[in-house]
Parts: sequence; C-alpha cells; structure tokens
Amino acid sequence: MVSGMSEIDFKTELKQRTRKIDDIIAGFMPEEEGYQKVLYQAMNYSIAAGGKRIRPILLWEVYRLFSDTDEAVIYPLMAAVEMIHTYSLAHDDLPAMDDDEYRRGRKTTHIVYGEAMAILAGDGLLNLAIETALKVLNTEDIEIMARGAKALRVLFDKAGSKGMIGGQTADILAETGTLTPTTELLYFIHAHKTAALIQAAMMLGGILAGADEKCCEKLEKAAYNIGIAFQFQDDILDITGSFAELGKPVGSDNENQKLTSVSLKGLEEAKAEVAVLSREAIEILSSFPRKNEFLIKLVESLIYRSR
Amino acid sequence: MVSGMSEIDFKTELKQRTRKIDDIIAGFMPEEEGYQKVLYQAMNYSIAAGGKRIRPILLWEVYRLFSDTDEAVIYPLMAAVEMIHTYSLAHDDLPAMDDDEYRRGRKTTHIVYGEAMAILAGDGLLNLAIETALKVLNTEDIEIMARGAKALRVLFDKAGSKGMIGGQTADILAETGTLTPTTELLYFIHAHKTAALIQAAMMLGGILAGADEKCCEKLEKAAYNIGIAFQFQDDILDITGSFAELGKPVGSDNENQKLTSVSLKGLEEAKAEVAVLSREAIEILSSFPRKNEFLIKLVESLIYRSR
Repeated sequence: MVSGMSEIDFKTELKQRTRKIDDIIAGFMPEEEGYQKVLYQAMNYSIAAGGKRIRPILLWEVYRLFSDTDEAVIYPLMAAVEMIHTYSLAHDDLPAMDDDEYRRGRKTTHIVYGEAMAILAGDGLLNLAIETALKVLNTEDIEIMARGAKALRVLFDKAGSKGMIGGQTADILAETGTLTPTTELLYFIHAHKTAALIQAAMMLGGILAGADEKCCEKLEKAAYNIGIAFQFQDDILDITGSFAELGKPVGSDNENQKLTSVSLKGLEEAKAEVAVLSREAIEILSSFPRKNEFLIKLVESLIYRSR
Repeated sequence: MVSGMSEIDFKTELKQRTRKIDDIIAGFMPEEEGYQKVLYQAMNYSIAAGGKRIRPILLWEVYRLFSDTDEAVIYPLMAAVEMIHTYSLAHDDLPAMDDDEYRRGRKTTHIVYGEAMAILAGDGLLNLAIETALKVLNTEDIEIMARGAKALRVLFDKAGSKGMIGGQTADILAETGTLTPTTELLYFIHAHKTAALIQAAMMLGGILAGADEKCCEKLEKAAYNIGIAFQFQDDILDITGSFAELGKPVGSDNENQKLTSVSLKGLEEAKAEVAVLSREAIEILSSFPRKNEFLIKLVESLIYRSR
C-alpha cells in the first residue's frame, strides 16, 4: 500500500507537527540560571541542535492510530524520547568516542562547551528524560497510571545496555576491530543503536493509547524494520548519493572499510532488502482498524530519502 | 543524644548489612554476555569497586525507623541509589573531569576499560538505575504504587541537574576558576554534589515506609546536615590527619588552593560547625516515635571518622 497524501500536504503537516514538538520539548527544558547555568546552556544547546524529531513524531502518530483523545498525556514521553536520543549524540560525538566536530552543520556540544560539560550535559539530559517521563504517572486514573508504568519500562529497557547503549558499544567495538565484522553483528548494531529507540517511540504511542499486547508486538516489528531500512538506506546513499546530497564524501564508508550492508551484501541486495523491510512495515501499520495516512507517508519519506 | 550501642556490636552489624546490600545490588546487575559483554564487565567492575554502600544502608535504616514489614519493596531503590552514585564516580574520574587513575586503591574504570567504555558504562549504570528503580511500580497495591511514584520523583530530582549533576558542574567550574570561591558556593557544591543523593536515600526510606510529608522534610534536613558535615570533616582530616590515615598527602587540598571549609572558615570554626550539624541531625533522627540505635551510631561513625 502506498499513501495517497500529496507531497505538499505532507510537507506542510510535517513542518507544523515538528514545530509543535519543538514547543513541547522546550517546555520541559531548564531555565539557564544558578551556579550550574553553563550545564543548562549545554543541555539546551544540544537539544536545540534540532534534527527531525523523528522519534517524537512517530510516537505521536502511532498514538493517533489508536486514540484521538487527551493527547497531552503523551507530551512528557515525546520529550523524554528526544532527550535520550540527544544525550546519546552528545556522548557519541566526544573525542573518546566518534570524535565529531560538527553535527547537522553545527559545532558539537563538546566543541562549544568543552568535554567535561558535554559529558555532564549528556548525563543531565538522560536524568532529565526520566524526570520528565515520570510525569506520565501524575494521574489519579489507575488505568492511565498502569499504562504509564508500562511505557516507562519499555522506554528505559530499549534505551539501556540491552538496547541503545549496547548497540553503541558494539559499534565502537566493531570500528576499533575488537569485534569481527559479520552480517549478524551488522544487524545487532542497527537493531540496538538505531531501531531500539524507534521501537520505544512507536510502542509508547500504542501503550499510552491503550493498544493491546498483540498490537504492541506488531509495532515493535514495524519499528525494527524502519530502523534497519533507515540504516541500510544510509549505506546505499553513501555509494549512490552525490556530495551535495550527503554533505560528506561519497563512498567514505567504503574507503574506511566500514561494516555496512552494501559491503556485506552488495548494492542490489541491500536495495532489495530495504524494499522488503519497508513494505512489511507499511503493511503492519495499515493492518490496524484506524488508518493514519500521514504516518504511512512519514515512514516512506524516512526510508526513501535522498540524504 | 549519643548511641549506647557498643562499638563491636555496631561493626559486626555494619559488616553483615553491607554484605547483604552487596548481594542485593549484585542481583540487579547484568550477566556478562553478548556483543556488549565488555560494557557489562565495565559496569560490574565499577559497582564491585565497592565502597561503603552508605546510601543504601541509610535508606534501609530509615525505612526501619518507620516500618518493620515487607523489606523487599526497598531493594530496587537501594540498588538504584548505589548505581547512581557509582556512575557519577566513573564519569567524575574521566580525564576530561577529575582525571583520577585510582579510586579506593583500585584502578578507575577508564584506566581498565578505556575512556569510551567508561563513558558508556556510566550511561549504562544510570539507565540501569532507572530500569531497576522502576521495579518499585510492579505492584497491584495502589498505595504502594503511589509511594513508589513519589520515591522515583524524589530520587531523580536529587540525582539530576538541579541536584547531584548540578553540584558536580559547580565543583568543576570552581576548580577551573570559572566560578569565584565563596562560602555560598562551597555550601552549594556540598549540598548538591554530596548531600543531594544522601537526602534521596533517606527520604526514599521514609516515603516507602509511608512516613508523612513532615517526616520527609525532617529527613531531608537531617540528610543535608550529614552530607555537609561529612564533607567538612573531609576538609578537616586533610589538615589534621596522617598520610597513613588519608592515603594522600596531608594538606594537599590546602596546597592546591582548593575551596574548603577550613580555608574559608579556619580549622576551629569548621570543627565547631561539624559538631552542630551532627548534633542536629541526630536530634532529628531521635525525634521519631521509633528508635534506631544502629542508625544513630552509623551517622556518628560517618561524620566522626578518621579517614
């Protein structure tokens, strides 16, 4: 199934929703004051670097797929997911990790605020994510509280050493040659470093809307496919894209002998797998009683992007 | 009031309880397996470095001060508090922060596992603290769930940028000369970097045992005093202790022009203040209907230590 929503309508709606999400996140960020003012500045700088807010948007759109009431209940978790994503970038960019000076055209947190503050800002953002996420429990409604508790478990399970942090660990170990590059390792890294937090976002949307266990399993599978396809597409663009589209030298992954889907499977097989993963994900998201065209279009645009 | 418990009884009990706490914490730590095995090793190494488990013991003993039933409810939070304390040490020891090679006679996490793994192990421990703490919500009992939610809020409020992380930030900024050394700054650093997590531990003991708001405020105040007195005693020992007792050169803080209570107030005034803070804390802990002699003795031993 392919979404029938027009490209222009989609882009207008996407922009509106991203702006709304920026406002929601900003509402949970700290005032820059007190002796730790520079810490708050570094946290706010990291968050403001922006990005596409993919995870909160997915959470929101999945929520809409199962409920149309009381959206405010998901705000704290939308913000928390983005805080977790952001702290992981601030730490990944550190000299001891990927040593990146720029991200999305802006200087990285440790370049602007120094390494110590970048480490503390990352810690601060992870801690703020749990402080913010806990607001989901501020309710008298037992049913909502139970959903909130389940959402918190899923979120920090996917974000932790069994999930995202485990994936970043394996990625570092692969890049330093400590782990042997295999297809299994490649899937492990993408499934954990990238897909895990996308799974959390989409499952949280379902859980908070009261979707049942079976629906949550379907969402977990769809999000897995989206995460893997997204990363495979990254590998493909590195070979087929232009410098202008990518903002980095074409084929740079290849030259660095990086473990990628293209180096392991070849270009054609990688492309074919992206198509299969993507079709499966969209089939799952189209299988629920309600329809959400915007969500389908969003998933297509995430996977079949040119940069 | 001074505790009547004999020194030998106290030490025997303390050893037993510390061992029990080690077992409880170990029960929440990960198996060392999978592609991220080295991450788990680094997390377990950091936790096993041990230390005195002061925060979980305080949580436990305050819980006993208000309840004698169903102790297992506090286990996840005892472990979580220690995980938070441990992650903060692993990150504080990093080259970009305090650059420490040894802690308690063992090599620090980044010396053994490298900087990248020490950063990830710290992140992993904070995330595991959340995962573990959330187990307090695994109950059908609405009252216990409400207490658990409150405990979680207090814990991560005290651990975050308004609390412990804020204190570490101010400490770094003071050491690098970015912040001017004043008495107010000294109290801020100790209140946040040290006292905040002790406050969390003691307040959690009260909250989980069902102590009322007024009792929790008293516990917060007692814990503040204990934290400040503990750090002031550190400053005093740096001047009056022997090398054998301290394990570092006597007067090293002084030589480094470090911001300390002794450098700001003089030795005698610092000693007098430790006595006042300590007496107040013990008065508060003796003011509740139940008595806990072991807790009083523990507080005395923490403050009036020789190393």
